[in-house]
Formats: sequence, structure tokens, C-alpha cells
Amino acid sequence: KQYRIAVIPGDGIGKEVMPEGLRVIEAAAKKHGVAVQFDHFDFASYDYYEKHGEMMPADWKDKIGKHDAIYFGAVGWPAKIPDHISLWGSLIKFRREFDQYVNLRPVRLMPGVPSPLANRKPGDIDFWVVRENTEGEYSSVGGRMFPDTDREFVTQQTVMTRTGVDRILKFAFELAQSRPKKHLTSATKSNGISITMPYWDERVEAMARKYPKVKWDKYHIDILTANFVLHPDWFDVVVGSNLFGDILSDLGPACTGTIGIAPSGNINPEGDFPSVFEPVHGSAPDIAGQGIANPIGMIWSGAMMLEHLGEKQVADAIVGAIERTLAERTLRTRDLGGNADTTACGKAVAEMVD
Amino acid sequence: KQYRIAVIPGDGIGKEVMPEGLRVIEAAAKKHGVAVQFDHFDFASYDYYEKHGEMMPADWKDKIGKHDAIYFGAVGWPAKIPDHISLWGSLIKFRREFDQYVNLRPVRLMPGVPSPLANRKPGDIDFWVVRENTEGEYSSVGGRMFPDTDREFVTQQTVMTRTGVDRILKFAFELAQSRPKKHLTSATKSNGISITMPYWDERVEAMARKYPKVKWDKYHIDILTANFVLHPDWFDVVVGSNLFGDILSDLGPACTGTIGIAPSGNINPEGDFPSVFEPVHGSAPDIAGQGIANPIGMIWSGAMMLEHLGEKQVADAIVGAIERTLAERTLRTRDLGGNADTTACGKAVAEMVD
Ligand SMILES: CC(C)[C@H](C(=O)O)[C@@H](O)C(=O)O
Ligand SMILES: CC(C)[C@H](C(=O)O)[C@@H](O)C(=O)O
Repeated sequence: KQYRIAVIPGDGIGKEVMPEGLRVIEAAAKKHGVAVQFDHFDFASYDYYEKHGEMMPADWKDKIGKHDAIYFGAVGWPAKIPDHISLWGSLIKFRREFDQYVNLRPVRLMPGVPSPLANRKPGDIDFWVVRENTEGEYSSVGGRMFPDTDREFVTQQTVMTRTGVDRILKFAFELAQSRPKKHLTSATKSNGISITMPYWDERVEAMARKYPKVKWDKYHIDILTANFVLHPDWFDVVVGSNLFGDILSDLGPACTGTIGIAPSGNINPEGDFPSVFEPVHGSAPDIAGQGIANPIGMIWSGAMMLEHLGEKQVADAIVGAIERTLAERTLRTRDLGGNADTTACGKAVAEMVD
Repeated sequence: KQYRIAVIPGDGIGKEVMPEGLRVIEAAAKKHGVAVQFDHFDFASYDYYEKHGEMMPADWKDKIGKHDAIYFGAVGWPAKIPDHISLWGSLIKFRREFDQYVNLRPVRLMPGVPSPLANRKPGDIDFWVVRENTEGEYSSVGGRMFPDTDREFVTQQTVMTRTGVDRILKFAFELAQSRPKKHLTSATKSNGISITMPYWDERVEAMARKYPKVKWDKYHIDILTANFVLHPDWFDVVVGSNLFGDILSDLGPACTGTIGIAPSGNINPEGDFPSVFEPVHGSAPDIAGQGIANPIGMIWSGAMMLEHLGEKQVADAIVGAIERTLAERTLRTRDLGGNADTTACGKAVAEMVD
């Protein structure tokens, strides 16, 4: 079988880290006798928007909807184009229209990467953040009244559906059940957000009854962020709403040293649509064009993609190569205190693959 | 002038740390010739609820509404009483009905307190979190439809009014302008929460025009939490909505070692109503009754209260005593690696006051 991957570099450093991601996937696929075909697309970028007046062609779903997965760099360039056009016209569209209701991110302290937390060693921090990726706080329901007067106000609804909540919780409980610790933590704020969050808690309790082997607990989001810093070793699988998951999956990687190495998957578990794999970092206009971006987030996202496709061996080979490259400390980028450029770092990982 | 303070210990460790807070205020007030009268109230507690079937008497506003300030321990005991009764029936009622629209919390790494962040020293972390305290995500507007069916959903509105947003921003810009760095950071998420958060950004921009001496920036809440861990030295005054401020004002104190020492003020700046001063920590049922709670959050909240009342000298004397007690490392509680009990720690601070 040959995997067909849609490749979308996007904006800024997305374009710089993508070639390194492809380089490493190619190296690993070749070693393991797996065939991968890359189809390149220039849409979902500011350049495309400038030329065509829209982020994506009208038939974007025909173009990439039948691929086995989408490998995505980064999108957005706030100084040139408002987020509600760039992000809502691409990344968030994928999540919604391809029903990628799981946003999955590992939080793992890698060998050789200094943690900003005192006295934490690889092995101390190793958990997953499972984020609801289609509804919740990121709704489009709301509006403004009495504009430009003293009575002006805006409202925006958080929307949680039983379908939406239950399916993300099921995914998270399944993941927890598959891990040695079998421990799930739910992010809530039912003491302050008095309607949607108690509902979230209610569904967690109902789902927990179906997974008696999973130990679970819940924390309000305020103290949970505190515990990410104070007790990162407490966590195994952490599940949260769209907003809470968003926060925790940036804070978690920060606790492991840099968000430059963190990968993510936007997953449609049923496989009805392709899933998107992208680094956690954004397009980073401030360092774009210098060739200094850390490609590890992109490369690791490639490993997540291969694992999602069922090629766990190839995925493990890539993660192993990342770990060894980081542990050797020779070819690392500036954000990790080294002086390798993006390409040198990518090549180093590609050569490490076994 | 004699200050009249309403004293409400509340639940759990609130009752244990309160006497230490009073001890230190009394010591400091005496030294500085300031007269303080304490009026004690047993409501806003589970015990009161058990006896009377409600959290507070009907005339609670008459009882405490004319005091110069309210000194509050902690409320809530989830195993015995649901949060929506205990918290919404006391703490959140105060905030709303006494229009305490500012929630103010210092984030300061104190001498002698080990930070969970690597290589951070006192002086590196010293900023304020200013939180909107009456509206935003903590609304009561919303509901549930199609209960107990597959179509079930819940909604809850975030509500931001021009009045509510502008007055908290004004407070935050004024505070920033009064500080040497004159730097304000706004917490947003306008790339994902597409109606209320762009409105927040819009009002920040409008307010910033009135404070040309203040340098300001904004971060999305996800990367902002990451930057609290990676670059806590970047911040001076951080302003956020009810929810974002809640998160940041737990995460910030966690980065400075323990939330056991963090104080907070729920402030009505106009002085139309009394303000509430309380430690950031909650009632902590898990350690209540053992006499081991850290009283410093309560004591420091007393200093904030005195500063709010205009007694800056007395407040500084208390903060100085806290700093010296912590720096000496002899009389500290368990959460800071010591073995002093609550009373011993409180007495130590009281003796240090000069
Ligand atoms: C107890 C809870 C409702 C409260 C809040 O979220 O406001 C607390 O976390 C706080 O920060 O004072
Ligand atoms: C760019 C932004 C809309 C997005 C989000 O908040 O979902 C990003 O932060 C992410 O986590 O993928």
C-alpha cells in the first residue's frame, strides 16, 4: 500500500520546517520499506490569499479530502491578514469540516532538553493532552448590541453537545485505559462556569462508569495549570474542552522546555476524513525567513501521522531519532541553546533514523 | 480614625489561618498606632448553612455592607455542599452585589521560597494580575435543551459589557502607569473565541490610547500561560477576563513556589461597597483540622487590605515581616518544606513586624 499525504506548508516558518519533516519521513519510510506519496498544495497560506483573495480554492475538499492524511506546517500572519480570515479559513475549517474532533498532543520531557521546571528529568513528565476540537468555547454564536454607546455589550455562547462531549471523553478514556497508569484527569471549572462545565462533569462521571479500570480525577482549570508546574508527574491523560485543551497543550509543552518541538494531531478517529498533523508552534513571523526555526515539532508531527496511519514501527524510528539527536546536544537549534540551522537539525534527525 | 473590619473565617483552613491574620494585623496596627476593630461573623460557611439552611442571613448586606473592608478566609466544602450553593451564595455574591469588579493578585517570588522554575531568584518574578471579577465567562445566562436524549446540548453565554471591560482596563492601565516599568500585558484569545475576545482587544486598544506612557502587548491565553513558565520576567501588569484572570492568578503564584502564600483583593475601587481580602487558596478540606495550613496567604491579604485602606506603612511592615520570616527559613509550614504549624508561623510573622 502506498500512503497519499497532502502536504501544506502554509506560512512563515511552516515553509521552512516542512522540508525537514518530509526529509525525515522519507528517510524512515525508505528504511522500513513503506511507500509514501506527497502531494503539495500552496493554499491555506497568505501567499495564496494574496493571489486569489481567499485562503483556499472552492474545491479544496475534492483536492485533499481523499488523502490518507494532511501534513500541515503553520498558518497565520496577523500583521498582513486577520486571524479570522487566515485561521478560520483554513485550520479551523479543516477541524470542523473534516470532523477532526480530537486534538491530541504529547507532553514529554525529552532527553537533553532542559526543562524550565527545577529538578525534572526525562521520565518525570510524560502525558497526553486530549482536547475537544470542534465545539465548546470556539462557537460562532453571539453578537453585539448597542454599538458605540455606553450600553454596548457582546455575548458569545459556549456550546457543548452530548455527541461532542461524549465522543471526546470516550477517546480520552480509551487512551487512558490503554496506558500502564490508566489515569485520566478532567479539566473543569464548574465552580465558576455554572452551566456548561457542570454538564461536562456530569458526562465525565457517566463515561467513567463504562471504564471501571481507569482511575480518574478532575481539577478546576486554575489549579490544574498550577499543578502542571508544581506536579507534572501527576498526569497521564488530561482531557479538556476546546479552550481548556488549547491552554493545557501549550502550557504542557512549555513545561518540557520549548513549544518548538511539540507535535499535534487533529484527528477524525473514524477515518471518514483525513486527519491533520501539525506542529504546536505557529508561523512565527518574527523569526521567519532566517532558517533558524526548530524543525522537531514538524518532524515529530510526521511520526504522529505515521502512527495514526498504522505504521507504528516507522513512527517509533522517527521519535527515537529525535530523542537521540536531542540527547547528543550537538545539532540543536537556537531555542534549545544550540546554533544549528533548521536544515542541519533536520538532516541530523534524518541520519539518526534506524 | 478607627477601621471597622468584618471578619469572616468561612470553612476548613479558613478558620485556622484567620486567627494568624488577625494576630499579625493587630501587632502591626499597634506598632503603628492605627486603630482596628474586628467584627466577627459566622456566616458564609458550611456550619452556618447546616444550621440555617442558607449561606447567609437575609440581611447580610446590612450586617457587613458598612464596614471599611471584609477580611475573608475561605469558603466551600464540595463533599458536603455543592459549589453553586456555597460559592455562589457567598464569595461570588460579594463580588457581584458589592460590585468588586477588580480581582487583584500579586505574583512575587519571595526570598527563601524555592520556585518550581529553574534558576529564578527573588526580583525575577514581580508582577500583578488584574482580573475582571463580575462578568465575562462567569455568567448565569444559558441552559439545556433536549435533556437525556442524543440531541442534548447546553449553552452558556460569555457576556462582556463596555462598562465592565472599560473599567477593569482603566484600573489596569492606571496600575501599570504607576509602576516603574509601565508595562501592561493583555490576555486574549481572539484567534479562537471570535466575538467576545476581539471586542476585548478593541477596548484594550481604545484604552491604550489614553495611556501613551504605558507600553502594552497582548498574548493569546495559551501562549501566555507558556510564557508565565518560560519568561515570568517579561511581566509587570497582566490584565484578563474573569476566566483568564482566574487561571493566570493561580498559575502565577504556583510559579513563585506555592499558592499557600498568595493574597488577593476583591476590590470596589470607588469605595461604594466594602472590598473583600482573602487568600488565593481555598478551604482545603484535605488538610483542614490538622493545624498545618500556611497562614501567609491570609496574612499577606491583611497587608493588601491595609494598603487599600490607605495604611501603606502598616501594610509594608507586614509584607516586610513576611519576607524576613520566609527568608530565615526556620518557621515555615510543610508546603514550604518546613515543619512549623499554622500558629507558630503566624506568631513568627507577628514578632517580625516592625
Ligand atoms: C472558588 C471559585 C469560584 C473562584 C473563582 O473561580 O473565581 C476561585 O477560584 C477564585 O479565584 O477566587
Ligand atoms: C491558531 C489558533 C486558532 C489555534 C487554536 O486556538 O486552536 C492554536 O492555538 C492551536 O492550538 O492550534
